[in-house]
Amino acid sequence: MGSLENERTVIGWAAKDPSGILSPYSYTLRNTGPEDVLLNIIYCGICHSDLHQVKNDLGMSRYPMVPGHEVVGEVVEVGSEVTKFKVGDVVGVGVLVGSCRNCNPCKSDIEQYCNKKIWSYNDVYTDGKPTQGGFAQSMVVDQKFVVKIPDGMSPEQAAPLLCAGLTVYSPISHFGLKKSGLRGGILGLGGVGHMGVKIAKAMGHHVTVISSSDKKREEALEHLGADDYLVSSDTTRMQEFADTLDYIIDTVPVFHPLEPYISLLKLDGKLILLGVINTPLQFLTPMVMLGRKTITGSFIGSMKETEEMLEFCKEKGVTSMIEVVKMDYVNKAMERLEKNDVRYRFVVDVAGSKMDP
Amino acid sequence: MGSLENERTVIGWAAKDPSGILSPYSYTLRNTGPEDVLLNIIYCGICHSDLHQVKNDLGMSRYPMVPGHEVVGEVVEVGSEVTKFKVGDVVGVGVLVGSCRNCNPCKSDIEQYCNKKIWSYNDVYTDGKPTQGGFAQSMVVDQKFVVKIPDGMSPEQAAPLLCAGLTVYSPISHFGLKKSGLRGGILGLGGVGHMGVKIAKAMGHHVTVISSSDKKREEALEHLGADDYLVSSDTTRMQEFADTLDYIIDTVPVFHPLEPYISLLKLDGKLILLGVINTPLQFLTPMVMLGRKTITGSFIGSMKETEEMLEFCKEKGVTSMIEVVKMDYVNKAMERLEKNDVRYRFVVDVAGSKMDP
Repeated sequence: MGSLENERTVIGWAAKDPSGILSPYSYTLRNTGPEDVLLNIIYCGICHSDLHQVKNDLGMSRYPMVPGHEVVGEVVEVGSEVTKFKVGDVVGVGVLVGSCRNCNPCKSDIEQYCNKKIWSYNDVYTDGKPTQGGFAQSMVVDQKFVVKIPDGMSPEQAAPLLCAGLTVYSPISHFGLKKSGLRGGILGLGGVGHMGVKIAKAMGHHVTVISSSDKKREEALEHLGADDYLVSSDTTRMQEFADTLDYIIDTVPVFHPLEPYISLLKLDGKLILLGVINTPLQFLTPMVMLGRKTITGSFIGSMKETEEMLEFCKEKGVTSMIEVVKMDYVNKAMERLEKNDVRYRFVVDVAGSKMDP
Repeated sequence: MGSLENERTVIGWAAKDPSGILSPYSYTLRNTGPEDVLLNIIYCGICHSDLHQVKNDLGMSRYPMVPGHEVVGEVVEVGSEVTKFKVGDVVGVGVLVGSCRNCNPCKSDIEQYCNKKIWSYNDVYTDGKPTQGGFAQSMVVDQKFVVKIPDGMSPEQAAPLLCAGLTVYSPISHFGLKKSGLRGGILGLGGVGHMGVKIAKAMGHHVTVISSSDKKREEALEHLGADDYLVSSDTTRMQEFADTLDYIIDTVPVFHPLEPYISLLKLDGKLILLGVINTPLQFLTPMVMLGRKTITGSFIGSMKETEEMLEFCKEKGVTSMIEVVKMDYVNKAMERLEKNDVRYRFVVDVAGSKMDP
């Protein structure tokens, strides 16, 4: 399948060690196989998990590592068996670039739960080479893990949908919450939380942002279009909201008590956890039993849901709120993201950046 | 509605204080109102929660208290508007004897989740008088909270179905698990757990009993008909069972780690908690997120589900395993129950007991 001469050398920005500092790094891409798509990257979002990965917070990082899994690019070459895409298409790549194709999740089109899934970066591809992400000039990706960006959707707006947007869309859809008239809560207003507000509003839900302080009230109500704002330390209002929510999307990535939020849920309400937290969370059994409440979680979404979600966002005019930066600002952006100093997602203008300074 | 002369004096066995010791106690029943059924009690099961209530373990006990909420009796009088029952019918009464009738749960026929539900005992009825349970000669109960015991079902066998049986039937039915071919786990083999094995088997499930020791293996496999038996400390077999169960019914009423059991669940599997535990339980978010697993709970079941469950048990020949005792053995039975020294449910032969020694 192609000779070494066809291997492309590309420049990406990689972390070289757990300092997490990114700097230019040159590596080769595999040849474009029959099922592969070669894309030149236009934009790539910065997700909170990129921060964890480059700093080895989960203890599984391999360096050099080019992060980035909210990738929008233009197709520049397709393999002989690629039918879904043609040169010139604007496409997206998310958190995954491979899966086994044979397990139950794969056969059920929920390949994000495949035990052999291959991550877009910090993983090893089927050819034995490390996967590298979207803070780079180009990527070669199997067509199954590539999605068309709908015509008319701006590529920089689309980037955060591919992880943050999908991460909230998938559980809302899967748990039967994709219907108007529901009352939802969004806990935590970061990259994922802000997409939660926008997507839930687009579904016709009454959306309450729940936060530990009053700081984001105006932002939530005026700019994101939330219907209500609840400060979790305000016991009077928390009491007023008891038993009123059909679901809460909990995006908080650090330890927090669950009981105040479980008590906001109606009978049969669902607390959907999206934050990877390495400290155990706690709850009392009567709190779930006496309202038949559910504590659950969800992990990104499938390629099928990605397509649905992009169509939904296009149809409903859902956009993400982003701050576009150049590649040479990425380390500063990471630093600001760590302090939650971004409204709400950094997107790197990869195509417009000088990759090798 | 009737004069004082019509009030019946009955004898029940009541706890008088938090020692929990039961002894004869005389009290009056309200007159049989238009919607009421008067029943003479034949059998009454002893539930683990009776033990908590008589000893004031939950801090909400009022004395004197006649416990018992797995009541089977014969109808001896019906009110003018009672249409569902006639004198001579064998009927059951469970955990509840009242609800508001107006809230969403009541209107949705899941009155067990009504915030104004009235418990069969240790509660106050609409007339301001204390409710008293089934360790007594008779009860007056609103027809909505009375259920017909199907013809041909023995009354002593039926008693434990009214709480223990219902408690497992309801979540299996509600959570979409009432279909053959599923793989279920039953954690804890007490009164509720043994009904879990029997009902899950009757639904055509492959049932694995999960226990902390090997002690109940023979019992589970030979006598209850479980398909497999798993000791939670046997890490090799626990590993073999990883990702294999559609659900686990967790009946353990004391603190226990959840992770070993969550890991047994398949993608989308459900851990259904039925034990009231006042120490917080713990879990790590990635364990639920990466398999979209659910931690939930359930509280008894509705009157509608009680009818369904009794019909189901009759049709499938599901019986409970009981030890029938007389009323004067009740304190000893409670003592043995506390030590888990019963296979699997004590049922008091109320009609056959001398109530006032």
